[in-house]
Amino acid sequence: MDSLTWIGLASIVVAGLTIGIGAIGPAIGEGLAVSSALSAMAQQPDETSSITRTLFVGLAMIESTAIYCLVVAMILIFANPFWNYFIQQAAQQAGGGG
Amino acid sequence: MDSLTWIGLASIVVAGLTIGIGAIGPAIGEGLAVSSALSAMAQQPDETSSITRTLFVGLAMIESTAIYCLVVAMILIFANPFWNYFIQQAAQQAGGGG
Amino acid sequence: MDSLTWIGLASIVVAGLTIGIGAIGPAIGEGLAVSSALSAMAQQPDETSSITRTLFVGLAMIESTAIYCLVVAMILIFANPFWNYFIQQAAQQAGGGG
Amino acid sequence: MDSLTWIGLASIVVAGLTIGIGAIGPAIGEGLAVSSALSAMAQQPDETSSITRTLFVGLAMIESTAIYCLVVAMILIFANPFWNYFIQQAAQQAGGGG
Amino acid sequence: MDSLTWIGLASIVVAGLTIGIGAIGPAIGEGLAVSSALSAMAQQPDETSSITRTLFVGLAMIESTAIYCLVVAMILIFANPFWNYFIQQAAQQAGGGG
Amino acid sequence: MDSLTWIGLASIVVAGLTIGIGAIGPAIGEGLAVSSALSAMAQQPDETSSITRTLFVGLAMIESTAIYCLVVAMILIFANPFWNYFIQQAAQQAGGGG
Amino acid sequence: MDSLTWIGLASIVVAGLTIGIGAIGPAIGEGLAVSSALSAMAQQPDETSSITRTLFVGLAMIESTAIYCLVVAMILIFANPFWNYFIQQAAQQAGGGG
Amino acid sequence: MDSLTWIGLASIVVAGLTIGIGAIGPAIGEGLAVSSALSAMAQQPDETSSITRTLFVGLAMIESTAIYCLVVAMILIFANPFWNYFIQQAAQQAGGGG
Amino acid sequence: MDSLTWIGLASIVVAGLTIGIGAIGPAIGEGLAVSSALSAMAQQPDETSSITRTLFVGLAMIESTAIYCLVVAMILIFANPFWNYFIQQAAQQAGGGG
Amino acid sequence: MDSLTWIGLASIVVAGLTIGIGAIGPAIGEGLAVSSALSAMAQQPDETSSITRTLFVGLAMIESTAIYCLVVAMILIFANPFWNYFIQQAAQQAGGGG
Amino acid sequence: MDSLTWIGLASIVVAGLTIGIGAIGPAIGEGLAVSSALSAMAQQPDETSSITRTLFVGLAMIESTAIYCLVVAMILIFANPFWNYFIQQAAQQAGGGG
Amino acid sequence: MDSLTWIGLASIVVAGLTIGIGAIGPAIGEGLAVSSALSAMAQQPDETSSITRTLFVGLAMIESTAIYCLVVAMILIFANPFWNYFIQQAAQQAGGGG
Amino acid sequence: MDSLTWIGLASIVVAGLTIGIGAIGPAIGEGLAVSSALSAMAQQPDETSSITRTLFVGLAMIESTAIYCLVVAMILIFANPFWNYFIQQAAQQAGGGG
Amino acid sequence: MDSLTWIGLASIVVAGLTIGIGAIGPAIGEGLAVSSALSAMAQQPDETSSITRTLFVGLAMIESTAIYCLVVAMILIFANPFWNYFIQQAAQQAGGGG
Repeated sequence: MDSLTWIGLASIVVAGLTIGIGAIGPAIGEGLAVSSALSAMAQQPDETSSITRTLFVGLAMIESTAIYCLVVAMILIFANPFWNYFIQQAAQQAGGGG
Repeated sequence: MDSLTWIGLASIVVAGLTIGIGAIGPAIGEGLAVSSALSAMAQQPDETSSITRTLFVGLAMIESTAIYCLVVAMILIFANPFWNYFIQQAAQQAGGGG
Repeated sequence: MDSLTWIGLASIVVAGLTIGIGAIGPAIGEGLAVSSALSAMAQQPDETSSITRTLFVGLAMIESTAIYCLVVAMILIFANPFWNYFIQQAAQQAGGGG
Repeated sequence: MDSLTWIGLASIVVAGLTIGIGAIGPAIGEGLAVSSALSAMAQQPDETSSITRTLFVGLAMIESTAIYCLVVAMILIFANPFWNYFIQQAAQQAGGGG
Repeated sequence: MDSLTWIGLASIVVAGLTIGIGAIGPAIGEGLAVSSALSAMAQQPDETSSITRTLFVGLAMIESTAIYCLVVAMILIFANPFWNYFIQQAAQQAGGGG
Repeated sequence: MDSLTWIGLASIVVAGLTIGIGAIGPAIGEGLAVSSALSAMAQQPDETSSITRTLFVGLAMIESTAIYCLVVAMILIFANPFWNYFIQQAAQQAGGGG
Repeated sequence: MDSLTWIGLASIVVAGLTIGIGAIGPAIGEGLAVSSALSAMAQQPDETSSITRTLFVGLAMIESTAIYCLVVAMILIFANPFWNYFIQQAAQQAGGGG
Repeated sequence: MDSLTWIGLASIVVAGLTIGIGAIGPAIGEGLAVSSALSAMAQQPDETSSITRTLFVGLAMIESTAIYCLVVAMILIFANPFWNYFIQQAAQQAGGGG
Repeated sequence: MDSLTWIGLASIVVAGLTIGIGAIGPAIGEGLAVSSALSAMAQQPDETSSITRTLFVGLAMIESTAIYCLVVAMILIFANPFWNYFIQQAAQQAGGGG
Repeated sequence: MDSLTWIGLASIVVAGLTIGIGAIGPAIGEGLAVSSALSAMAQQPDETSSITRTLFVGLAMIESTAIYCLVVAMILIFANPFWNYFIQQAAQQAGGGG
Repeated sequence: MDSLTWIGLASIVVAGLTIGIGAIGPAIGEGLAVSSALSAMAQQPDETSSITRTLFVGLAMIESTAIYCLVVAMILIFANPFWNYFIQQAAQQAGGGG
Repeated sequence: MDSLTWIGLASIVVAGLTIGIGAIGPAIGEGLAVSSALSAMAQQPDETSSITRTLFVGLAMIESTAIYCLVVAMILIFANPFWNYFIQQAAQQAGGGG
Repeated sequence: MDSLTWIGLASIVVAGLTIGIGAIGPAIGEGLAVSSALSAMAQQPDETSSITRTLFVGLAMIESTAIYCLVVAMILIFANPFWNYFIQQAAQQAGGGG
Repeated sequence: MDSLTWIGLASIVVAGLTIGIGAIGPAIGEGLAVSSALSAMAQQPDETSSITRTLFVGLAMIESTAIYCLVVAMILIFANPFWNYFIQQAAQQAGGGG
């Protein structure tokens, strides 16, 4: 296999695993947060608005770690600098051989 | 095996594992959230509507991490840029040899 | 082994593992949800209808992650684009050699 | 080993592992559900009928993930499209060589 | 090793592991169910009959996942379609060479 | 190594692992069941007979998964159809060469 | 290495692992059972005799899974049918070569 | 494969795993923090402002560990000194050969 | 390496691992049993004698699984039938060559 | 591959894993600390200032372990003495060959 | 490597791992026992003597599993029958060659 | 690869893993300590000074294990006696060849 | 590599792992024991002396398992009978060749 | 690679892992001990001095297991008898060849 194939393979494998593994933590963390938000609302109904506000800030922080994973996965699939380099090399070689 | 086969293999394997591993976290996280929503409703029946509303926002956030995994799996199966590149190369080679 | 065999092998292995691994999370998550629904009904019998309604929405959300896994497994077995490509290649080769 | 053997091997291995791994989650999930159903009935005997009804719906949902695994395992053993393709190829080769 | 040996080996290994792994989940799940049935009976002796009835339905559901594993293991040992195919091939070869 | 050795090896290894792994679940599950039976008897001495009866039914169900493992292990050691087939083949070869 | 050595090796390794792994579950399960028997006796001294009786039945059931493992380990060391077959083969060969 | 390909491969793989693994801890840690912030607010509504302030400082500290991982991943993809060195070497070689 | 060396190696490795792994379960199980015996004695000092009696029976049962492991380890080191067979073979060969 | 490539590879891989693995512990530890700080503030609002002070000292101690990991990762990427040594060797060789 | 080296290697590795792994269980089990002994003494100071007596018997039982591991490790290092056999063989060979 | 490269590689890999793995324990241990210090201060505000003093001693003890890891990692990177030995050997060889 | 190197390598690796793995159990076990000793002292200050006495006996028992590991590690480094044997052999060979 | 390199490599790898793995147990154990010391002080302020004294003895015992690991790691780096032996051999060889 040439370099392009290896880089392509690695990008596919890592993109999938990054988001696959990276989704476990945030999903469970958000589950905990939502879970205790609902208990809190049941316990102190008058504070529903401030609980909801804090919950949303917290969910945004937790979701951000999932977003980081998605961003890295997307960079690896659609804007991979290593892939671009080797594509360019392959094009030059093809041009040089023409 | 040539490059196309390797890329195809990797895409199949990673698509499956991504959604397979990525379904564990959200499913358990949503289980926690629904679980405490029901306890909250049993404890404070008057707050059913606001609890349900918060629960649905939370479930949407958690489900989003599962959706990320599904999106990456679908991109790898149906819109894989690496596969497209090598298909195009193979077509050019076939055309060049014709 | 030729490419077709590798693609077939990978599809079989991944289809099985995807649904096998992907069934663990939803099953446990639904177990938690049903489990707390029943405790809630025992604690607040008058809310049975709204608890049941919320439970079913929650179960549908959790089941959806199992469905994603099943869909990917089914695509890999019955509508695999990589397999179709190589079948077509093999048919062309056979036709070209005829 | 030829392609048929590899496909057969993979189907046997994956069919067994799919149902073997896929039985863990549902069994534990159903154990949780039944377990809390019984506690709920002990706590609120008057609600036995509605608890039982909800329990059975829940068990059906959880059992469904085990059924998905069984279905995939059965497809891999008895209606495997990849195996059928290679059997047909082998038959054609044998016919072509006759 | 020829194909028959490989298929035989895989069937033996997978049959054992399927039932071996598949027995963990149901055994623990049933342990949980029986365990809370007994606590429930201690807490609400008057409900013994309805608790027992629900327990038996639950145990049957949980046991069913162990049965699925046993069925797949038995199919792999005594009614394995892949093994039958290769036995038949071997018989034809032996007949063809006679 | 010839086929007979491989089949023998696999049968020995799998028979041991099947019962070795398969004993963990039932032992812990039965431990839970007995454990809560005794707590229940301490809590509600008057129900000793019905608790004991339910416990024995539950233990039988749980033990059944260990029995499945033992049965598969025994089949693999003493009534292994794959081993019988190859023994018979070896005998025929020996007879054919005599 | 010849077949006899492989079969001997596998028997040694599997016999040890079977009882080694198989001792974990029963030991912990019996620990749980004894543990709650003692709590029960502390809580309800008058029921000591019926608690002890139930405990011994339970311990016997749990110990039985350890016994299964020991039996399989002993069969593999002292009454291994695969080993006997190959010993007999080796003796015949030695006799045939004499 | 030449050095450039190896360095590129390693950078892709490690960048993905770093952020994938590194997202688990912070997501769960933040889930715990948000979770107890909401319980605290339900318990002591008058302290909402100081709880929120402390929560945000804490979330920032926890998020910082995720940021470290993201920074390392980004350095490996876009400002990798090892990649730059080998690119420069490759350019010199190409220049030297011209 | 000849057969004797392999059998000796395997016996050493398995003897150690059998008792090493097999000591974990009983030690923790006995820890649980002793632990609850002491709590029970603190709670019900008048039952010290019957608690102690039951504890010793339970410890004996749990210790028995450790003893099984020790017995198998000792058999493998000092009374290994496979080792004896090969020693005898080696002696015969040496005698036959003399 | 030459030494430079190996050293570069190892540095990339280890830098990423060091901070990736090293972020799990501190993130969860800080989550625990923040979590109990908030509970403490809800329980004893008058002590907010001393709780906050102690919390920040604690967070600094915990964060320090993450910083150690980051420092080691940064040293491996930007100030790696092994890399510098081999770069210097390569330069000398290039100079010696000029 | 000759047989002596392999046997020596295996003995070293297994002796270390046996006691290394085998120390985990007893240490934690004894921790549990001592831990509850102290709670029991705090709860029922008058029973200190009988608690201490039972604790020591229990510690002795738990320590015994660690002792088994130590004994096997010591046998493997200082009284290893397999090592002795091969030493003797080597001595005979050396004598035979002299 | 020559010895220098292997020693350099190993030092890089081990330095990173040592601090990476070694940061998990102290971070969680300190999290527990800080966590209970804050609960203690909320429960007994008058003891803040002695709690803080004990906490700092405890944190110092726990941090010490992280420091040990950092020290070993730093020794491996900057004062590695094995690396120094081989550098010196390489210098002598270069000198001897000059 | 010759025998001496292998024996040396194995001794180094096993000595480190034995004490490394063997330190986990005792450290956690002692943590539990000290932890409950302090709770006991807080609960029953008058029993401080007898609690401390029992704690020290218990710590000594738990520490003993760590000591066993240290002893085996020290034997492997400084008084290794296998190493001594091979050193002696090497010396004899060197002497015999002189 | 020659023996010196292997011994050096192993010493580096094992020294790091020994302290890396060996720091987990003590750090968590000390976290537990400090944690309960602080709770105890909050519960029984009058006993602060005796709690602190017992805590320090306990921490010293737990720290000792970390010290054992550090000592072994330091011996392996700075006073390794196996390394010294091979260094001496290499010096003799160099001297003998001079």
